[in-house]
Amino acid sequence: MNSIGNTFRLTTFGESHGPAVGGVLDGCPAGKVLDLAFIQQELLRRRDGDVPSPLTTARHEADRIEWLSGLYQGRTLGTPIAFLVRNQDCRPADYGQLQDCFRPGHADYTYQQKYGHRDPRGGGRASGRETVARVIAGAIAKQLLLTQGISFSTTIRGRQIACTILGLPAGVGDPVFDRLNARLGFAMLSIPSAMAFAVGDPADSYQLPPDQFPDAWQPQGTADRLTLTNHCGGIQGGISNGMPVVFHVGFHAPVTHPEGMTCRRADGSLVSVAPHGRHDRDHITRLPVIVEAMAALTVADLIALT
Amino acid sequence: MNSIGNTFRLTTFGESHGPAVGGVLDGCPAGKVLDLAFIQQELLRRRDGDVPSPLTTARHEADRIEWLSGLYQGRTLGTPIAFLVRNQDCRPADYGQLQDCFRPGHADYTYQQKYGHRDPRGGGRASGRETVARVIAGAIAKQLLLTQGISFSTTIRGRQIACTILGLPAGVGDPVFDRLNARLGFAMLSIPSAMAFAVGDPADSYQLPPDQFPDAWQPQGTADRLTLTNHCGGIQGGISNGMPVVFHVGFHAPVTHPEGMTCRRADGSLVSVAPHGRHDRDHITRLPVIVEAMAALTVADLIALT
Amino acid sequence: MNSIGNTFRLTTFGESHGPAVGGVLDGCPAGKVLDLAFIQQELLRRRDGDVPSPLTTARHEADRIEWLSGLYQGRTLGTPIAFLVRNQDCRPADYGQLQDCFRPGHADYTYQQKYGHRDPRGGGRASGRETVARVIAGAIAKQLLLTQGISFSTTIRGRQIACTILGLPAGVGDPVFDRLNARLGFAMLSIPSAMAFAVGDPADSYQLPPDQFPDAWQPQGTADRLTLTNHCGGIQGGISNGMPVVFHVGFHAPVTHPEGMTCRRADGSLVSVAPHGRHDRDHITRLPVIVEAMAALTVADLIALT
Amino acid sequence: MNSIGNTFRLTTFGESHGPAVGGVLDGCPAGKVLDLAFIQQELLRRRDGDVPSPLTTARHEADRIEWLSGLYQGRTLGTPIAFLVRNQDCRPADYGQLQDCFRPGHADYTYQQKYGHRDPRGGGRASGRETVARVIAGAIAKQLLLTQGISFSTTIRGRQIACTILGLPAGVGDPVFDRLNARLGFAMLSIPSAMAFAVGDPADSYQLPPDQFPDAWQPQGTADRLTLTNHCGGIQGGISNGMPVVFHVGFHAPVTHPEGMTCRRADGSLVSVAPHGRHDRDHITRLPVIVEAMAALTVADLIALT
Repeated sequence: MNSIGNTFRLTTFGESHGPAVGGVLDGCPAGKVLDLAFIQQELLRRRDGDVPSPLTTARHEADRIEWLSGLYQGRTLGTPIAFLVRNQDCRPADYGQLQDCFRPGHADYTYQQKYGHRDPRGGGRASGRETVARVIAGAIAKQLLLTQGISFSTTIRGRQIACTILGLPAGVGDPVFDRLNARLGFAMLSIPSAMAFAVGDPADSYQLPPDQFPDAWQPQGTADRLTLTNHCGGIQGGISNGMPVVFHVGFHAPVTHPEGMTCRRADGSLVSVAPHGRHDRDHITRLPVIVEAMAALTVADLIALT
Repeated sequence: MNSIGNTFRLTTFGESHGPAVGGVLDGCPAGKVLDLAFIQQELLRRRDGDVPSPLTTARHEADRIEWLSGLYQGRTLGTPIAFLVRNQDCRPADYGQLQDCFRPGHADYTYQQKYGHRDPRGGGRASGRETVARVIAGAIAKQLLLTQGISFSTTIRGRQIACTILGLPAGVGDPVFDRLNARLGFAMLSIPSAMAFAVGDPADSYQLPPDQFPDAWQPQGTADRLTLTNHCGGIQGGISNGMPVVFHVGFHAPVTHPEGMTCRRADGSLVSVAPHGRHDRDHITRLPVIVEAMAALTVADLIALT
Repeated sequence: MNSIGNTFRLTTFGESHGPAVGGVLDGCPAGKVLDLAFIQQELLRRRDGDVPSPLTTARHEADRIEWLSGLYQGRTLGTPIAFLVRNQDCRPADYGQLQDCFRPGHADYTYQQKYGHRDPRGGGRASGRETVARVIAGAIAKQLLLTQGISFSTTIRGRQIACTILGLPAGVGDPVFDRLNARLGFAMLSIPSAMAFAVGDPADSYQLPPDQFPDAWQPQGTADRLTLTNHCGGIQGGISNGMPVVFHVGFHAPVTHPEGMTCRRADGSLVSVAPHGRHDRDHITRLPVIVEAMAALTVADLIALT
Repeated sequence: MNSIGNTFRLTTFGESHGPAVGGVLDGCPAGKVLDLAFIQQELLRRRDGDVPSPLTTARHEADRIEWLSGLYQGRTLGTPIAFLVRNQDCRPADYGQLQDCFRPGHADYTYQQKYGHRDPRGGGRASGRETVARVIAGAIAKQLLLTQGISFSTTIRGRQIACTILGLPAGVGDPVFDRLNARLGFAMLSIPSAMAFAVGDPADSYQLPPDQFPDAWQPQGTADRLTLTNHCGGIQGGISNGMPVVFHVGFHAPVTHPEGMTCRRADGSLVSVAPHGRHDRDHITRLPVIVEAMAALTVADLIALT
């Protein structure tokens, strides 16, 4: 299923080089005014990266959002918010040579094994282009949560992105399976190229010895100044404790190389291919807004939206 | 909700010092003969640890399983398999002093914030005792999967447990949200004291530079000898590729100290408490069977059980 | 899956002649005092019927509830409420002759087709005995809803049971798929022997001509005195309008006959069998409490429990 | 949530007079060739009715489908199939007078109560226009099922529509909550203006006395010639028995009257309104294709699609 969330649920659709990518966001409260310019701005962060550089993709993505439903006179109706972004600048010819071979490090081989055929153009559904819908929905979630005092920020550290959630009240998360750390981990590991997740401040807090790990209580600590350290990353027993929630996501390096790749054919033989598609040299600077979006979608699904 | 899985779903119940812990496992195919002795043996692994030591808990847990439904003449009926394990050796008096204070590093404070009151005895629902149900259900999943050629093994490395899944065919996992790595991460991070998760071989593969990360294809490689390295941990684009699936889970140190703890009272004042309950000195050796159980439950939910 | 509900979810287990029937109720708010005597009383209504008669089953069911989890010092913990009722008075010998043949009007044949084997004793999982768990959970839901001013009542009419929900505020139900009438219909049609469902007052309101069907507004009508008639049964566009919700459930006649039945063998041949098991002559008087229970579970899942 | 189904799931979006209505269909197997002309033809049945008459709506609906994703070179990809149909012929001015009053028999009042505001144009989300997405998705489901030998047909009887499913194998449906009759009832009662549902042949079989109700076995009956009568409508214990599945859905009369209506204002006062929007005089002939679509979506969700 291409959905995430139970009471605040995003369903995404679209292949990289099909007509459009988009999504349906269900569970948004009625009567909310959405700042559409902010949403467009978040899409720009996704396209250009937080640290714009010549190394990000040269593919031009105008990414203009068409709102299909759920809004009336600028306010949410409580009905599903559906939207799409047309795919432009498609040059399928670029991908012709990939029709019958599987690139290393990509999803080509596994899609072929799972579905029996695939859209070879630019990764199809497995493309990072699918995250357009996540960023749009995440930007809506961010707006709703900001009115409840909850905000998200990120920092790039090597190949890790650290995310901090401020303002989350104590009591968010379920104690057994749907723990806050488990739900955040699930959402983060669903981002293309994510391989690692850790909660805690710092990232390797879990390796502290028993006499250092448990965060000592702040004497007369207030709701958001509860402990002297925050090794647990604001989560105790799977439930937020009111301190900042801190987690880290590790992403692998880009797998498309401009100098070409040795691909595998269906018969197991190998072949050298020099791709002409324009791909990311390094996509790490484009990931923070996606990390924040997935965090916002997760929190919006776990708390009561007012 | 205290359930995990969609088509193979475990629901657990029970507090540490209530009458019983147990579970309902739904979606098990009919007509299967279960090896009840193996299940009991897995419970012993949970109790004594894979490397028995005087440092594991002294609490005696007989852990005899009562099967309540779903079995007839030794075979599964296709109906829900319900089971319970009575809690024995309860000495509520041991926990009396914890009624009105919150231990550091525990779920006491967050439960109180979320629910307004709690069972203070031994952590109640937040206790590691809840994992009894996971191990039982996981042992059933392991048996079903073994007949399909899929097996699980674990190694303890520092405060990490590495798990390898052998025999998983290519094509398991969904490409967008329910990626195999995301689902495994979710299941692992739901284990008490889990804080970190990484997929890949070795654990920090995601930090490799672009020219080393993508696994080169094995020339004329077969289904399970597909690539020369396994940096992606057997998962490409969220879907298994037929290679061994390799992941790692990081667990924090024990948070209960025999020499006592400085607890927080509801009014924010601190108080020293010397707990008399018998707790784990180090629970790391008891976790491998739980990691394997959660991996088996995850895989059984994602593939077609035959 | 043997579960119903999303945020207030009941999972049931147990075969008629297995060790026990029971359930796990998830999503009950914390801190509620449950009237256990009322729950026991509802079980008596299920056993003896609202109009006790010699025609109801002679099988003695003590139906003593064992509470396994979710309660502490008489109050709910917010954790899953698990319970079981032991099966007593099992005489498997009574059912020996049914091992290899399928009774008309029962689930014997379809279970065999679906699962390949079955528990032939008393219907196994298909027995009306499974509704014990529904009545217990429904009695909990009723208590929670009563504190919010919502109550349930039923009347037997022929082979129909009419149910009225009083006090339901306007706005309950979702407009497209999870309409209040659709969710009530689903819950009612899941009761053993239910075949028909209609919303409206009277039951056949849907057959009224266009000039009579739509309920005219009450001039200056108040929230619960909204319309002059209630043909729509308190539901407009799938959403409650604040008027009493009125619906009807049709149940087929008992299918077990004391004088014996002509059964089908696996090879298609027929055979006469005189059952010795003690069954209902007419179970209609035992159904009202089940209808109310399923209505309460449905409403508790759709509204915000406080 | 605006979704139906678990493994074959339709999510719909769109208001009657917004930019578009559409849907996302998830769980469709890969590699299937879809007959797009058949789908378009089903949309025509929805627009014009099975018995075209001057009494159906005069609103012109071109209903051209835009396929947004999930198809590549004419075959399904296994990814979500997203589609939309633009709304044309919108004359919002027609509905201006309905902005501040609630029509009898419509969803105006309940939407206002639930969401605090609404799109007053043509019913917004509550409009029958939303069923466009159901018919498209249902037409896809029908095609998939036809290759497995399963087909759907309907007959209009008064204000009831009778539906027969042919070719459904024995064993479909779950025994406790997700019974085939409960799932069909849920799907049918989610259709706008549906108020009643009954399974069985004939519709009132549930009222037969005990000596007539249970269907006698056909001597040496084959899989689809199992019983002499079909009072149970092909469902025993919630599970299909291989006989034709027969059910009936009752729909109320149209609630929009060309001669005008007495509406309720927010302050409880009444006002006469003569609507200018073009509405159905009788929509019953347009409902059969929707009933079939919902039946096909239900069956496709319950069986293994090959």
